[in-house]
Amino acid sequence: MYSLYYAPGAASLVVHWLLIELGAPHELRLVDTQAKQHKSAQYLALNPNGVVPTLIDDDGKPLYEAAALVLHLADRHAQSGLAPALDDARRGEYLQWVLNLANTLQSPLRLWWYPQDIEEAQADTIKDGARRRIEATWDRLDAHLAAHGPYLLGERVSAADFYLTMLMRWTRNMPRPGHEWPHLAALAQRMKARPSFKTLYEREGLTEWA
Amino acid sequence: MYSLYYAPGAASLVVHWLLIELGAPHELRLVDTQAKQHKSAQYLALNPNGVVPTLIDDDGKPLYEAAALVLHLADRHAQSGLAPALDDARRGEYLQWVLNLANTLQSPLRLWWYPQDIEEAQADTIKDGARRRIEATWDRLDAHLAAHGPYLLGERVSAADFYLTMLMRWTRNMPRPGHEWPHLAALAQRMKARPSFKTLYEREGLTEWA
Repeated sequence: MYSLYYAPGAASLVVHWLLIELGAPHELRLVDTQAKQHKSAQYLALNPNGVVPTLIDDDGKPLYEAAALVLHLADRHAQSGLAPALDDARRGEYLQWVLNLANTLQSPLRLWWYPQDIEEAQADTIKDGARRRIEATWDRLDAHLAAHGPYLLGERVSAADFYLTMLMRWTRNMPRPGHEWPHLAALAQRMKARPSFKTLYEREGLTEWA
Repeated sequence: MYSLYYAPGAASLVVHWLLIELGAPHELRLVDTQAKQHKSAQYLALNPNGVVPTLIDDDGKPLYEAAALVLHLADRHAQSGLAPALDDARRGEYLQWVLNLANTLQSPLRLWWYPQDIEEAQADTIKDGARRRIEATWDRLDAHLAAHGPYLLGERVSAADFYLTMLMRWTRNMPRPGHEWPHLAALAQRMKARPSFKTLYEREGLTEWA
């Protein structure tokens, strides 16, 4: 039984979605980020980064970093086929995409949401620079999907596509959301059609971008 | 036989180091970043991000993202013991650390080196914000190593420590380099004592931080 510390729509979303998709028994522990629960001493003892998600594993050990949890859960529930096996020729490409999404999307999205982490007084400038990097990534990913899609690994859906869909959702109110790029929009439509997405939205009480 | 596109001291360093450490047959292909070879059409066809490293795998497929290559090589050369196996209780923690280093060090280090990617006119402000984030990471990692070291996974060295050492090296000329924190300095000393580090330095023609 896993326990997931989460906040609706936050980086915990992809972990929650995969737990549902994989049929992995789990319980949810809501973190009230408005009340700054994620900065409490109790939470920081689990996750010194003070962010969601934190996943408590079978053995009681807390784990964090959303992209690491994506990799870990897909490997631990190998029968799902959501991660190429270690000896699969696509394994390297799969790891590449997960890290590429972390570096070229999640990282500038963090700047977009929290420019004050760098400098409050320059928030607009920092957000603008982050936006340009994010849009350049959409260009690159859309071209990849056009040539090699419909999923990041081609015909085969993988845990990387779940992660990409969450990151696309995060840009839904940006000047140019990810789903304005046609092949990214098509990937999002496929992912949102999965029954696990409907369950996820119900459980997190989400309605936006449905 | 692997082929590694590299530039001395760049993000390719950890991949090169692991190839040596793992005894994996490989050839090196120098990318002249001064001459902007990494932005050439030929290189962008291999790696659309226009950065080093790119690793050409046995099957001729180009792979990129340094942290993904760290994970991939350590898994493919499992006899080295540099990655906990999928069923090892430390696997989740191992993945967590690699992603955590990517997010909390490599990402702000990119801002430190290339603030113009966000905004040239605000370079000093952006660098200052990045520096504060990096120093907060050193605080957190040093506390982790003090309590649970000497390596990130405790008594057992892993590929994550090679990655951390490269990132620490990158801060050698910053106002407060990573090695000013005592437990990080101790980890660096252990890692630099490995014969593979000496070979790496000879092959890349490096002398700084030796």
